[in-house]
Amino acid sequence: MTDIPATHLRLLTTASEDRITLTLASEPVPQPGEGEVLVRMEAAPINPSDLGLLLGPADPATLRREGEATVADIPPQLSRAVGARLGQALPAGNEGAGTVVAAGAGAEALVGRTVAIAGGQMYAQYRVAKARECLPLPEGTPAEAGASSFVNPMTALAMLGTMRREEYEALVHTAAASNLGQMLVKLCAAEGVPLVNIVRSAEQAALLRGIGATHVVNSGDPDFRKQLTAAITETGAFLAFDAIGGGKLANQILQAMEAAAQARSPGFSVYGSTQMKQVYLYGALDTSPTEITRGAGMAWGVGGWLLTPYLQRAGAEEVGRMRTKVAENLTTIFASHYTSRITLAEALEPETVRAYARRATREKYLLLPNG
Amino acid sequence: MTDIPATHLRLLTTASEDRITLTLASEPVPQPGEGEVLVRMEAAPINPSDLGLLLGPADPATLRREGEATVADIPPQLSRAVGARLGQALPAGNEGAGTVVAAGAGAEALVGRTVAIAGGQMYAQYRVAKARECLPLPEGTPAEAGASSFVNPMTALAMLGTMRREEYEALVHTAAASNLGQMLVKLCAAEGVPLVNIVRSAEQAALLRGIGATHVVNSGDPDFRKQLTAAITETGAFLAFDAIGGGKLANQILQAMEAAAQARSPGFSVYGSTQMKQVYLYGALDTSPTEITRGAGMAWGVGGWLLTPYLQRAGAEEVGRMRTKVAENLTTIFASHYTSRITLAEALEPETVRAYARRATREKYLLLPNG
Repeated sequence: MTDIPATHLRLLTTASEDRITLTLASEPVPQPGEGEVLVRMEAAPINPSDLGLLLGPADPATLRREGEATVADIPPQLSRAVGARLGQALPAGNEGAGTVVAAGAGAEALVGRTVAIAGGQMYAQYRVAKARECLPLPEGTPAEAGASSFVNPMTALAMLGTMRREEYEALVHTAAASNLGQMLVKLCAAEGVPLVNIVRSAEQAALLRGIGATHVVNSGDPDFRKQLTAAITETGAFLAFDAIGGGKLANQILQAMEAAAQARSPGFSVYGSTQMKQVYLYGALDTSPTEITRGAGMAWGVGGWLLTPYLQRAGAEEVGRMRTKVAENLTTIFASHYTSRITLAEALEPETVRAYARRATREKYLLLPNG
Repeated sequence: MTDIPATHLRLLTTASEDRITLTLASEPVPQPGEGEVLVRMEAAPINPSDLGLLLGPADPATLRREGEATVADIPPQLSRAVGARLGQALPAGNEGAGTVVAAGAGAEALVGRTVAIAGGQMYAQYRVAKARECLPLPEGTPAEAGASSFVNPMTALAMLGTMRREEYEALVHTAAASNLGQMLVKLCAAEGVPLVNIVRSAEQAALLRGIGATHVVNSGDPDFRKQLTAAITETGAFLAFDAIGGGKLANQILQAMEAAAQARSPGFSVYGSTQMKQVYLYGALDTSPTEITRGAGMAWGVGGWLLTPYLQRAGAEEVGRMRTKVAENLTTIFASHYTSRITLAEALEPETVRAYARRATREKYLLLPNG
């Protein structure tokens, strides 16, 4: 237990009705109980899914220092979104990796191992975790390589799992040049699943082709709809996962799916094709309303999609198989790429918060809590 | 076979790229084959589901006579909606009832009976139908009472069936003062299913309360959202069937469901409640885009819903039980009410077409092909 300090730093986010406040709190280092370990956190990514808790509905343009804290204003019309968390100082960070530096009874075997963990409270210098929930990384794997072992890899696997459960045979994915999108390209290639990638620039298209993507459609191209319809007609991808959420893209995908369904099986019906067409919105890169013109017949659906309920429905056995697959392919299919590495103190600098809150496809921040 | 003329009139709808043309065609009366009957059509409703075929995307404001025909223009941006039916003269009318006046081999027992039939081509003076697809009405029941035996009654039953298959326990219904809505009120009361009715006027609310509805919410009231949330909180109605389709109503329902879910099970999650919330759009009384602001957490869905795929999934046995239930309750739960009765010739008059194309909740047109 040498080298473990008495106190450590933890990033907390607190909402009042009109603002979000980010602080670094100095707290006692927690003690692992029976079956638990103490992890010295070495790397934790800032995922889009972390920003919902970190900043909530606050406007990043208003970010500023107030003493030791960083604050941002919540637009009045969005204040009810924080109703249930008012006044609570919440720890953040969905996943990360580090070194086991202490263990409670029954968990001693993990001491010294580098492990990946998930479940919140990762933006801290130390965190207690249940030993059975740790994913020990292969010996010699640096913590950074395991920092993103859960959210993106499990999401990619759960998307394929959803496709199989709902009896589709191919996928459409948007914001496809993201870390998650690159994993999905490699995973679908490995599993022989046709994937239609929608990106927003020629540079992103080239990146995906460079890692083996076959169908890449650029929404900035003037003939985007035509390209998308052709790719869906060829692949039969009638299930889409959309990270954009708002605006017209989900509707464009449904319309392209309907045109593809009619091309694959011609004949008139006033209700459109009988092919079911589904778009799941799993992100909100565009926070404007989703606009559906209902031009895709009657057999269509749009809905929210989230990893956690999928894992709950899938059950322990399937989740176990998914975790094994992640561990085995951590430096290949499921490798993450970071463009910026920041400390806990830097994670509170208004300019830095604004940068990672942009959710830019090619930018990815890694927090080094002990860096 | 006496009294059967050589020719009869049939209403046909033909689309070109820029217009829909309605005509009455004089055609030979068809002959029933083996296992078939010839029905003299006495009553056929004009349902919203008939208008999609009759008028397609044409603008009713442009309706006019051109010689014997009635025409209406298709706005240029909607012309691709008729691509698959271009140039075909299509018969219309989804359901109706009449008297069996002739029969092929094996179907003689039905001669003289009044039967309800479905499956298209009902806006005609005569129609051949398979004997096994006829629903013989109880002796003495007039054809008019059986004219709407399929679309609305089976839709109401299929909505309840969908609710049970998807494991919800209560329903929200919009445009709830419609003929279908009134059936649903009586059916849900008979089966003990809580139903939240959304109407658009105090008059409609009074009508529904008059037939026993418990939860009636008027979308015109200033505290509509509050009333709706309270009704959903009380009933647990997390599944809605929406006939409006466009605009903000589906989104308002999802938001009220989310508020109800949080009221029933408080606690903060950045992803909202875990209660699944579903709105099925089965009509398009408002043809503007559906706008979803995604303020209902991540466990939500919006999608198209249609009777036919439900019946296909349900299978022959369940469909048989549904038909029996309709026949047994035709003059009670499943009674329809008509406000106008028109002949085939009147069904082509531009002013009349405009009137039934309005899809007004309280107006219901019955076509009397031999009237």
